[in-house]
Amino acid sequence: MKSILFKHRSIRRFRSTPIPEKVLREVLEAATRASTCGNMQLYSLVVTRDEALRRRLSPCHFDQPMVAEAPCVVTVCADVHRFTLWCEQRDADPAYDNFAWFLNASTDALLAAQNLAIEAELHGLGICFLGTTIYTARQICEILELPAGVIPLTTVVVGYPDEEPGLTDRLPLEAVVHYEKYSDYTAAGIDELWAEREASELTRRLLDENGLPNLAQVFTRNRYRREDNLAISRSYFELLRRQGFFNND
Amino acid sequence: MKSILFKHRSIRRFRSTPIPEKVLREVLEAATRASTCGNMQLYSLVVTRDEALRRRLSPCHFDQPMVAEAPCVVTVCADVHRFTLWCEQRDADPAYDNFAWFLNASTDALLAAQNLAIEAELHGLGICFLGTTIYTARQICEILELPAGVIPLTTVVVGYPDEEPGLTDRLPLEAVVHYEKYSDYTAAGIDELWAEREASELTRRLLDENGLPNLAQVFTRNRYRREDNLAISRSYFELLRRQGFFNND
Repeated sequence: MKSILFKHRSIRRFRSTPIPEKVLREVLEAATRASTCGNMQLYSLVVTRDEALRRRLSPCHFDQPMVAEAPCVVTVCADVHRFTLWCEQRDADPAYDNFAWFLNASTDALLAAQNLAIEAELHGLGICFLGTTIYTARQICEILELPAGVIPLTTVVVGYPDEEPGLTDRLPLEAVVHYEKYSDYTAAGIDELWAEREASELTRRLLDENGLPNLAQVFTRNRYRREDNLAISRSYFELLRRQGFFNND
Repeated sequence: MKSILFKHRSIRRFRSTPIPEKVLREVLEAATRASTCGNMQLYSLVVTRDEALRRRLSPCHFDQPMVAEAPCVVTVCADVHRFTLWCEQRDADPAYDNFAWFLNASTDALLAAQNLAIEAELHGLGICFLGTTIYTARQICEILELPAGVIPLTTVVVGYPDEEPGLTDRLPLEAVVHYEKYSDYTAAGIDELWAEREASELTRRLLDENGLPNLAQVFTRNRYRREDNLAISRSYFELLRRQGFFNND
């Protein structure tokens, strides 16, 4: 029998039922059991349950209704601030305000976030990761009052599911796994890896809806467009400097 | 009863017993079930089992014996290359060679990596994440022949454990969880959060070994020093440009 990991679906419709304190605490504790660089735990989990505040966060996530509807929105942040404060109070000279530690802290934070998601699902909760977090990270910093040394990476919406979506397809395992070294793809290989998805009913529907000749163009022309990608790259990088994660000299 | 997530320990001594194909495949498949941005699966898992190649990777991880000893070393990479190739073959105009997509791909990759770790543990395997990956990412790119659009983020060593370490302590949950908004720490709060760890037997031993007055200085003066942090920041950022993840204009 396959593990719980094989049952994951992103949930986008939630009941308003609150998460019992004890369950939420266990979910958050499970997050902290993930591997962490030097046991430094370079992340913060901002757990927003207050409805008014969730409504303020909602535009940061393009007003997807789940942000206001689900009982709990967890903004997952890289955090070198807490560790830096501790060092300063101990007459130690911390140098964690640079890109290496953005990477280390992000790794800590995202491993913890996935533990949080899995533990939530073990308790019958549903989750959805919100990639919109990096688009609007500056506004999220303001709403959640994140100090320097803290920056949002992703958001996990958590609550009891009000839908039962089917499992999403994935590319064949061979698409993402390389044995020994990286084996580059041939043109025929790429065609083969995407063949099933491109032939699917879902793809046919997407092409109809978008009026486009193929699935790749749905991504490049509608979903994740050049001008948006560049604007997000610049704004997040600027925020990275502003929040004190890029003092590399 | 608490979930498997509460039993995680990093394993650093492994038996040489190979991982059965079927188990390895299930572990890798579990990785692909993690949430992924737009179902794009922007990562590659480079699974190195060949001993000679593991020995070549070993210096990239400061010659920690587990890299040569464990049967399987998985280098977890952000990968926009595969998706870009597909777009190009479909007459779509991809723009994923920028910082926003380094962030999206890293998120995909690290959520998948944590799934991999958990599924491995469900099968009685042990794992260790290697933070050294970002220190020597350029050399890893060369050894594993990673093309532009691919960059290493972390490494997971996987195998059957040859040790049974105890659970590592964590800061109190209140250290990393903030309710509603971020609540900044008071000096007294910081003291309290670290009190138990600072009073521990492990800390006493570390201070003796390092000849230093407190635990914070073990980090800043010995483990993660300013000059190293800055050098890693610069070298990884340079690699990010070189691998084509920073064309933001």
